Amino acid sequence: MQQCDRLQSRDASTDLPGIAADILARLRAGAPRVHCITNTVAQNFTANVLLAVGAVPSMTIAADEVADFVASAQGLLVNLGTIDPASRTAIGIAVDAAVQRHVPWVLDPVFVDRVPARLAFARALIRRGPSVMRLNAREFQALAGMPAEPDAIREFAQASGTLVAVSGRVDHVYDGTGGVALSNGHPLMAAVTAAGCAASALVAACLAVEPDATKAALAALSVFGIAGEVAGGAANGPGSFAVGLIDALHRIDGEILRERMRAS
Amino acid sequence: MQQCDRLQSRDASTDLPGIAADILARLRAGAPRVHCITNTVAQNFTANVLLAVGAVPSMTIAADEVADFVASAQGLLVNLGTIDPASRTAIGIAVDAAVQRHVPWVLDPVFVDRVPARLAFARALIRRGPSVMRLNAREFQALAGMPAEPDAIREFAQASGTLVAVSGRVDHVYDGTGGVALSNGHPLMAAVTAAGCAASALVAACLAVEPDATKAALAALSVFGIAGEVAGGAANGPGSFAVGLIDALHRIDGEILRERMRAS
Amino acid sequence: MQQCDRLQSRDASTDLPGIAADILARLRAGAPRVHCITNTVAQNFTANVLLAVGAVPSMTIAADEVADFVASAQGLLVNLGTIDPASRTAIGIAVDAAVQRHVPWVLDPVFVDRVPARLAFARALIRRGPSVMRLNAREFQALAGMPAEPDAIREFAQASGTLVAVSGRVDHVYDGTGGVALSNGHPLMAAVTAAGCAASALVAACLAVEPDATKAALAALSVFGIAGEVAGGAANGPGSFAVGLIDALHRIDGEILRERMRAS
Repeated sequence: MQQCDRLQSRDASTDLPGIAADILARLRAGAPRVHCITNTVAQNFTANVLLAVGAVPSMTIAADEVADFVASAQGLLVNLGTIDPASRTAIGIAVDAAVQRHVPWVLDPVFVDRVPARLAFARALIRRGPSVMRLNAREFQALAGMPAEPDAIREFAQASGTLVAVSGRVDHVYDGTGGVALSNGHPLMAAVTAAGCAASALVAACLAVEPDATKAALAALSVFGIAGEVAGGAANGPGSFAVGLIDALHRIDGEILRERMRAS
Repeated sequence: MQQCDRLQSRDASTDLPGIAADILARLRAGAPRVHCITNTVAQNFTANVLLAVGAVPSMTIAADEVADFVASAQGLLVNLGTIDPASRTAIGIAVDAAVQRHVPWVLDPVFVDRVPARLAFARALIRRGPSVMRLNAREFQALAGMPAEPDAIREFAQASGTLVAVSGRVDHVYDGTGGVALSNGHPLMAAVTAAGCAASALVAACLAVEPDATKAALAALSVFGIAGEVAGGAANGPGSFAVGLIDALHRIDGEILRERMRAS
Repeated sequence: MQQCDRLQSRDASTDLPGIAADILARLRAGAPRVHCITNTVAQNFTANVLLAVGAVPSMTIAADEVADFVASAQGLLVNLGTIDPASRTAIGIAVDAAVQRHVPWVLDPVFVDRVPARLAFARALIRRGPSVMRLNAREFQALAGMPAEPDAIREFAQASGTLVAVSGRVDHVYDGTGGVALSNGHPLMAAVTAAGCAASALVAACLAVEPDATKAALAALSVFGIAGEVAGGAANGPGSFAVGLIDALHRIDGEILRERMRAS
């Protein structure tokens, strides 16, 4: 991944904490609209994550409204968490609108490992060209037919033409040529529902202000992971962790990013 | 607005903090049922706001159930946040039931500024005679065709026969003859999803125990704004602010209201 | 209730805190999948309660997916909080899959006291043989036609062949032959939306690792009540209480259970 190779070099122009801080600043200043077609479990937390960094969420899935929302947004999230016929229709309309209007979009193929029908639907969506796909290792394995190892992720990214971010203890962010491993985060992240869904929404928000998908994804996932570390340090459990994560996203700045970012 | 003029005077009988404290006391003692047709993003937070002041929320939108819920409720909220054909049908049934049973209702025309179809639907609902409409300045401008200035709000309230509350840094509450500006609140309110939706639900709860729409709306919005100030003083960001707002609504009393209320 | 009689005796083999601690340990080690058909108000909080004790929630109600989710789960919750035609269909499919695959399931007949149509639907579901039914006293009275007194609860459990848990200040857990009263909990529990719904989900999670419905229900409800007491001791209101409840569920252990459990 050329951009990532640049990001990893010691060249001052590829300072990743600086890039993330700059994208955060543009989010807070620009207040971009991010339309989210996401599952009902995740909606509230996702909206609060977006608001915490300055983006403006909308969440309708009504077939006669979704095109208007996407057309007036700067980013789109398509999350398959609790899809049904109505949300499948809405997703089709939303992706058409995004493609037509050049609104960047993120695919989060939640639970494709649990339902065969969902797998086929996710594959069809990948062919529509999302800017980024964010998923976990089980979901990657279901889609790719092989474990989420760096080479497999890079190959999948190359074949699909989409930036692929596989989240876990370490986040692997790959395009067809290279990748970066992000090691920020906190174990309590896995005990909060919709944390992954909200991370995908944050990628969509960063894409709304940064056209380079690699920079946007790396900024979003490192900001999210570092906010998790900050929250984890003060949490008594997953309840206070989720609250602290929102607070940390609101307060995070270049200094914290520079201090804590672990990319390799 | 005659009631408001009375409320603004120094006459002991129009002591606004006292009126709000009295309405709160009746909420806590009466535990009125408030049915909410609201968007799925806002449901959980809205329910917790209502429970925090002693009201009993219900939230179904099933067409064959909603009339029973409204008929056994003392207040109704109609929020357009994520409407679709099913919720549009439910809203029609709910408003019919409310009108027939004299259940007071509140309209919150969320995002009418984003979708033309939603604007037409909201206008049709205003003609059904909600007791109160609560919205933000952008939504007001979309509906009224002019900026949310005091004169425009008063005119719109007069023409529609509905009390109109435009929320923002300052909340403007107007009927056709006069109005009150409430200056309580906290900047973090705008960073919490569904804060406005929950404020509208609180107006519906106050209407459930107070037939005077002006008193109910002023009580609800000042209580909500003051709880926000209390929460804001101790918050580290929007996550802890939202938690603290629920706590503050549960604990707020006449003394805090008297100390902090800023109406003019 | 033979198991309960055993549990109540001073026989070391029927040490209730020890049984609850053992079930908790198996939850945390086994990470069972629990599919929840529950209302949209309750979904997020319910998912976080399940994750806090180590279970893995899924929540879809799509008719073409729900059988796959139930078939790959170890427990099922059916909650009637905001049912509509789509969720009614999903419930039928889910219960068929649970019965066929011997997945234990819990029925939570929310608001059957408010809607006659919901009462008939709940009665038909009881005939499908849920392992446990958890409800409040008003809902019990609507279903059973008599107040939720111990004898009436036992009779209802006997006639339906289902373990019945009636929640309130005291939780009454009965099968057809006997019962246990659990006196843990905190008054703020009633001020948090979906607390009862989440308790029902916790019963389904315990059933996923413990085939004895009595032990599973007693473990779930005592753990939930004790976590509520822990949270209540440090809360400033229902907002911080809900956060603290999730934290306490994550940290609760055999020592706390032994110290606080009040069963009789």
